[in-house]
Amino acid sequence: MYVVIVYDVSVERVNKVKKFLRQHLHWVQNSVFEGEVTRAEFERIKSTLREIIDEDEDSVVIYRLRSRPMRETLGIEKNPLEDII
Amino acid sequence: MYVVIVYDVSVERVNKVKKFLRQHLHWVQNSVFEGEVTRAEFERIKSTLREIIDEDEDSVVIYRLRSRPMRETLGIEKNPLEDII
Repeated sequence: MYVVIVYDVSVERVNKVKKFLRQHLHWVQNSVFEGEVTRAEFERIKSTLREIIDEDEDSVVIYRLRSRPMRETLGIEKNPLEDII
Repeated sequence: MYVVIVYDVSVERVNKVKKFLRQHLHWVQNSVFEGEVTRAEFERIKSTLREIIDEDEDSVVIYRLRSRPMRETLGIEKNPLEDII
C-alpha cells in the first residue's frame, strides 16, 4: 500500500518523528512523508509513532492509498521523488 | 475528485494561502487541507495558488485522488472531518 503521512507534533518531539519516518518513507516537504509500505511496515510505523508522540497533544494523519497517487507540485519541489524512485 | 494539499510557504504568504484554501477545502492540520472538488474548482485552486505563492521559493504539493481516501489519526484530531461532512 501507499501512505502519505502528515504530522503536527510539538517541537520537543518533531525531530524524533522526522528521523524515524525518514527510515521508512520519502520526505516530501515540511511535515509530510510518503511512500510504499508493506502491511507489516505500516503497523510498525503506527505503533512506533504512537510511542514517540504525545497522543494528548500531537496529531499524525495517515492517508492510506492503494498505489502512488497523482501528484502535482506548484512552485519548487523540495525533494524530488524522481530522484529516489 | 478528491484532493489533499500540503504546502510549505514562506511566512509572508502563508496566511493568504490558508485563507484562500479555507474557502474551498477542509483544514486538516498545520499546512494541510483536503476535500472534494470539481474539475473546474481544481483548476481555479491551482491558478490562484500560483498567483499567491512565490514559485521560486514556496512549494505546494497536490495529491489528486478519485475519492476520499482511508485516513487514520494518531493522537488528537485537530479538526475532525466528521463535523462538516
